[in-house]
Parts: sequence; C-alpha cells; structure tokens
Amino acid sequence: METTTRTVRPPAIAALDELQQLIGERVVLDPVQLARASRDSSRFQPAGLPLALVRAESTEDVSLALSWAHAHSVPVSVRGAGTGLAGGAVAYQGGLVLSLERMDRIVELDVPNCLATVQAGVVTADLDAAAREHGLFFPPDPASAQTSTIGGNIATNAGGLRCIAHGVTRDAVAALEVVLADGRIIRTGARTRKNVVGLDLTSLFVGSEGTLGVITAATVRLKPVPPGRPRTFRASFDSIEAAGRAVTAIAAGTAQPEVLELLDAQSVAIIEQYSPSGLPMPKAAVLIGQTVGHDAAEAAEVLVAVCRTHGAVEVGTSEGDELLEARRLANPALTAQGLRVSCDVGVPVAQLAAMFHGIGEISERHRRRISIVAHAGDGNLHPTVEAGDTPEEHRLAEGVLDDITRLALSLGGTISGEHGIGAVKHHELHLQLDAGLLEVQRAVKHALDPKQILTPGRGI
Amino acid sequence: METTTRTVRPPAIAALDELQQLIGERVVLDPVQLARASRDSSRFQPAGLPLALVRAESTEDVSLALSWAHAHSVPVSVRGAGTGLAGGAVAYQGGLVLSLERMDRIVELDVPNCLATVQAGVVTADLDAAAREHGLFFPPDPASAQTSTIGGNIATNAGGLRCIAHGVTRDAVAALEVVLADGRIIRTGARTRKNVVGLDLTSLFVGSEGTLGVITAATVRLKPVPPGRPRTFRASFDSIEAAGRAVTAIAAGTAQPEVLELLDAQSVAIIEQYSPSGLPMPKAAVLIGQTVGHDAAEAAEVLVAVCRTHGAVEVGTSEGDELLEARRLANPALTAQGLRVSCDVGVPVAQLAAMFHGIGEISERHRRRISIVAHAGDGNLHPTVEAGDTPEEHRLAEGVLDDITRLALSLGGTISGEHGIGAVKHHELHLQLDAGLLEVQRAVKHALDPKQILTPGRGI
Repeated sequence: METTTRTVRPPAIAALDELQQLIGERVVLDPVQLARASRDSSRFQPAGLPLALVRAESTEDVSLALSWAHAHSVPVSVRGAGTGLAGGAVAYQGGLVLSLERMDRIVELDVPNCLATVQAGVVTADLDAAAREHGLFFPPDPASAQTSTIGGNIATNAGGLRCIAHGVTRDAVAALEVVLADGRIIRTGARTRKNVVGLDLTSLFVGSEGTLGVITAATVRLKPVPPGRPRTFRASFDSIEAAGRAVTAIAAGTAQPEVLELLDAQSVAIIEQYSPSGLPMPKAAVLIGQTVGHDAAEAAEVLVAVCRTHGAVEVGTSEGDELLEARRLANPALTAQGLRVSCDVGVPVAQLAAMFHGIGEISERHRRRISIVAHAGDGNLHPTVEAGDTPEEHRLAEGVLDDITRLALSLGGTISGEHGIGAVKHHELHLQLDAGLLEVQRAVKHALDPKQILTPGRGI
Repeated sequence: METTTRTVRPPAIAALDELQQLIGERVVLDPVQLARASRDSSRFQPAGLPLALVRAESTEDVSLALSWAHAHSVPVSVRGAGTGLAGGAVAYQGGLVLSLERMDRIVELDVPNCLATVQAGVVTADLDAAAREHGLFFPPDPASAQTSTIGGNIATNAGGLRCIAHGVTRDAVAALEVVLADGRIIRTGARTRKNVVGLDLTSLFVGSEGTLGVITAATVRLKPVPPGRPRTFRASFDSIEAAGRAVTAIAAGTAQPEVLELLDAQSVAIIEQYSPSGLPMPKAAVLIGQTVGHDAAEAAEVLVAVCRTHGAVEVGTSEGDELLEARRLANPALTAQGLRVSCDVGVPVAQLAAMFHGIGEISERHRRRISIVAHAGDGNLHPTVEAGDTPEEHRLAEGVLDDITRLALSLGGTISGEHGIGAVKHHELHLQLDAGLLEVQRAVKHALDPKQILTPGRGI
C-alpha cells in the first residue's frame, strides 16, 4: 500500500537551512533516523523518505516548525511513540515529521481538583503511575498504554478496556494547548467540570487525528482509585451469540463492570499456545470482566448470575488479575501467529449477538477462520482474519474484513471504534459518512488548515 | 439592554410571500404572536419585532425556512420553550424566529441499547418520563427540565443538579440531526459507545448556542434507574468556606453523591419565607446531597462523616426528597423577592472555599448582600445580588457580578458553567477567551455559516 497524497515538491535547500536556523539541532536529516521515524504500527508504508524530522522540545519548537511548513507548503505528519494502527503518523515523502516524544514532562498534578497537565509526549502509563502515587488514576487505558503517548491517545480519541465504565479519552480531556497549521498557539477548554463558554474546540481536536492542529499539552481529568480489591469474573459459553446477549443484558443493568471483554474459542487457543495462562477453554467464547469498589465481589456475583441466565455453562470469580493479563496477550499472540489482518468495528451493544452471528456467516462464506477479540462491554470488536503472508492472501483477507465492516454498518455500527481512520481506512470513510457530512467536515478542516499541510489526505 | 446586532433591511414583501408559499400556515405574521415569540427567560430585550415566526413541524420545514433566510440574508433566532437565561433565543428585529416546539415527537426508545431518538421540541421531563417507563432515565436535569426542550438543552449544553454524577448534556448526546445555515441537512455521530470516524461534529454542535446550525433531532444516551431508594443528606456549617472544603473533599473521594448542592444562610431564609419547607437554618451554609444505588444509605453516612470532619455542626440523612424539593424552590423564591440579578460562574471544586471567601469580600466592599446557591459538587455557582428594581440599581448589581466573574476567572474558573453566553454575556467573552482563540472559533463559525445568519453576534 502506498500513500495516496499528492506528490510534494521538496522545498529548496535554502528552506531547509531556514528550518535548521529556527530549530537548531532538533532538526534531523540523517536518512536512517528519517526512515525510523517514518512508520507507525500499522501496515501502511511511506512512499518515500521525508525531508526532515523535528524532535520538538517545546511548544515554541512546534510553532516554529509549523510556521516553516506552512510558509513552504510542506505536508506534516505528527508522531509520539508511533503505536498508531491506522497509518496516521506515517511520514509523507518530502514532508516534515514532527515528533513530540521529547515533550514528556508532567507539568502539574493538581490532586485536589483531580487534574493533571501534561505535555503531549508523556507516556500514558507514566501519567497513570504518577497519579496513583496520590490515590488517583488516569481512566483511559488503550492496549498500548505502556508505550503510547498521551498526545497520540488524544489525537485518536483512544479507547481501551475500561471504556464501559469511564468512557473514551475525550471524556478525560478538560483543556488543550494546540498549535495550528500556521504556527499560532491556542489554549482551549477549562479546568472546571462545567464550562459553556464558546464552541467546544477541545472536543473537536480530540480524535481529529492530526488534521486540525498539533496537540502539545493537555489538562486531563483523573479519578480516585476505587477502594478495595478488584474482582475478576469469567463466563464460558457454548454459543458466541449467547455471550453477546449476556453482554447486552449487563450493559443495560445497574451492576456495572469496569471491564467486560470477550475472547472467542480460537483466540483463547492462540493465546494459550503463545503463553499458557490457565484461561478456561470455552466451546464458543468466554467473557472476562472486572468489578471494582467496595461491592466488587457482590457485583461480580450479580454479573456472573446474568451470564448464567443467558446460557453461560461455566462461571467463576477470583481476586487476581491473571485472566485480564491473559486477555492482554491477545495482540502479541495473534501477531506471533502472523494473524495481523484485523479490524476495529463497533456496534450498539444490543446488536452484538447479531454481529457475532453475521461474522460466522462471513467466515463460512469465505472459508476463512476469523478469530474475535472484543471490548464487548462497549460493542467494539477486533476480528482477525486468518491469512498467509503474501500480498494475494492479504488482499483476500481485506475482502473478508470489508464484509465485516459493512455488516457492522448495517447493524447501526461504526467502521472504527478506537483505532481511527488515518490512511488505512480513508477509502472506507464514505461508507459511514455521507457526502454532505464529509463536505462539512472538510469545511471545518479548511477553516483551520487552508493550505492542507496537516496530515493531508488522511483522517477526514 | 438592546440587541447589538447590525440593523437588518427587511426583505421585500415578495420574499415573505415566498416564505409562506414554502411553509404555508406554519408562517406566523401576527404581531401579538411575534412579540410573544421574541423573548426568552433572560432580561435581554429584543430591539424590535421580527419579520416572521415559523412554527416548524418537520426537519424539512426547518430546512426550507433556513434556505429562505440564507437566500435573503435574514438573521435567525431559534427557540424551543424560551427558558434560556442568556438571551440566545431573543428575536432579531426584522429577523426570522424559528420555533421547534411543535417538533415534539419521541421517535424511538431503543431500550436494549439505552438510547432514545427525539425531535428537538420534546420537553426534557417528557423524555425522562418515557424512559422511566422502561426502567431507564435521562441523566441531564436542568432546573427548567419540566418546561425546557431537549433541543435547547443540547444547544446550550445544559447542566443541572446531577452533573457531578452523570456529566453535562454533551455526555448524553450520541448523534444529531442538524440543519445548516443554507438548509442542508446533516446527521452526525453514531449509536455506538465508541466511534472515531471523522471529526466529532456532534460535540461541536452541542453548546454552540444556535450559531452553527439548528438541531432538529438527537439520539441521546439513557441510563438504568439505580436500584433501591435514594438517600438525602444535609450538613450545616458555621462557615461557608468550611462547606466549600467539605465539597472539595467529597468531589475527590470514592463515595460519590448524585447531587451535591449548597445554599447559603440567606438563600435558606428566602426559601423558607417563600414556602416553609423545614430546611434547617444554618449559621453560614447548608449542603444538601443525594446518594443512589444499593449502598445509598452507607454512602450518605460516609459523606456526612466527611462533612463533620470539615466542620459541619449539624448533619442528618433521610429517605425523602423534601430537602431537594426545597432546594429547587431557590429560583422562584429569589424571583419573588425581585432578586434576579444573578450569574452563573464556575471554579475548579478545590477553589470553592477561596471563591466563597472572595464573594464575601466583594459583598463587603460593595455593601451589597449576595446570596449564593451552588451546584457545589461541580463548582458551579449562581450568586444573586440584592438590587432594587431601577436601572441604576441593576447597573450597580451588574458591577458586583462583574467582580464575581473576574474572581472566578482568577481562580481558574469560567464565566458560564451552564447558562451559556448568548447575548447577555457576549461582552464578557474576551475575559475568558483570548483574541487568538476567538479568531479560531469565528473561523469555524464562518466555515459553517458564511453569511452569518444563525444567531449572529451572540454565543461566540
């Protein structure tokens, strides 16, 4: 796959000199380092080397770099740790790569207000760890939290395992510092719980995938760590549709888990082969959940009972985290198997059973095994298609995923729950957003980035 | 106070004929009805009569009316029940008033997915009542919920009493149908819990106060009604700063109330005079809260203990709603006293004690009594200044409120927590949003409404 953006005329050497004069040794021109900073964790490949990499150390660096790119109409890709799965941070040939990894300072922990102000390059798990020293935590927990940065999490509105209880990254962002395409610096949002002053640009920038501005710092909301020990529960099902119905019932109930994940039998087998963890081997699927707070044990029992009502054949609760740790092995285990042709669709939770049923039909029709890992509690699925390591095999697997995507949409769902559109799904955007809505989205983009230098041709 | 918008040349009679041909008898030209549809619940007065009122009965009516206004460059104000407190729905002289009150249909209650799709003119309490028939409820509860419409709630991102537990209206909105300035109809958002496809225009329209488009329908998130009986608690303080510190402690704790309100002694006296309710008369202030769920009683005891730790001199818990009902009398009681010069500021919850202290100093400096009612749990205050019913008295009271507004900002707060900017606070916008941020906001506005016909000169 190649980048679809227009070809860019590299600016004259004089312009590069100008950039170096502006930003000094934070400008990197070494081809090896440029190549290293050109990819993210998706299968999307850059068409060629970027012109330069700027390792920004301050908001002013970002502002200077964007002013320069704006003046010279150079396309810009923005990166933190490069963990994105949609190709949004892949370099443009002849473009500028703006890395915020060195902007990794936790500026302020405001414990009484449960707020933290951080630079964009802070690793999400580091923020969480710093908050926990004060009895607080940072609710969003994408699978990449140990390495991904908060700026990227915000730019993609990252999801994760705890969204059923705490919402998505957007819900945790109170205020932003953003550098616009032409280098202007703005600060959006407020430190209060309620604020209705002007348009909510904070929410607009969250999830905008680098298309509207570069997020350089954020004030995020923390929460108090729930008291007591979490309780983990599991429920095995002989039918994946039954597991889906159990999730629907739990999601509409008053006893709420903090986490509610689903692994189908094939995913469990792959994980157990990768690293035996004692996951119970279900006939069709297993639900793994966690409850927190004073009544964690009681809530886990209630949820297990709901599962039984909906057909669970084996259930259990425990105090340890082993089951969730096994769940977190799903990505590396699938990768180890070479099974990386996966997607990120979502459906309303009451459509989960229909979605699972439909995926089964697609699997039979294409005669391809599809394994399913899902943040079931919020209806977000990551089906993975079995495929050999050839372009033809990948093309066939993509065809299967297209069918899954269309199925999700037919059930009132979404083509991306948490990974974003980036470059990888850009050709599918029209499936979910009609021409009129896309036109409005692009008008907003044009208002903020009229020269189209920020992550052009991706995201929207 | 007069509208500050530019004078508009009324379009020719031919244009009005055209509007009537488009929309038929839903076009109202009768001056008495026009006058009635020209005001909202703020003290902001229209400069003169609008040209016409359209009582839209469908999204197509709205689209036709806006196409017409766009073609003739007629300024448009949008109204539901007219309960707004910021003048955002006040008619423009020579403008078009677009009323959505007749679009009052609950289109769908999707109980398994905890979603409702409603037209904009549905009264908020009616939606809540319909949801409760299925064991669900609509979390946002602005004080006006019995009369205000969901469209207005969304357009202003309305707050209310339960925000500490459930967030603001934005948090309850999944998808919108919006008619743009030129009559185009778009649908934003998704029915899923997670959706990262394109820019989040849904969040952008929420709270945009009629400046970007007209919200004609919404899909909103419902929640299951908590089990058991709610528990109400109260705590009286001899010092309002101590009450503020108790709120700060509660907001950062794990035992969370659904409601946490503060009334100062003067507000309690005014309420008791208006309608004796048995509210305990505090020396300085009383906190009134409510807990819900299985452990409501236990949580109430925990919260009362926190209040004692922070200096509460008298506390109690009960099963009834009487105390909250008394709290809800604050607005009519203050109105009955003629004390309607009030504002709507917010501070981070840990700054509440400093805010209360500062308001005390402002009161002494101006020698004016200031009574305070606050959604304390989320740091949102409605101070009311004692003032006689003359323009001079109002001017003096406004001066006091200006000081309170600047105090809130100096504490990291906001000039409006839940009422919005509208026309009333438009001159204060620059206090919170700097020129650079306002420029960006207006660029977004310009992208969606280049002829500036939607609620011009207000909101942003």
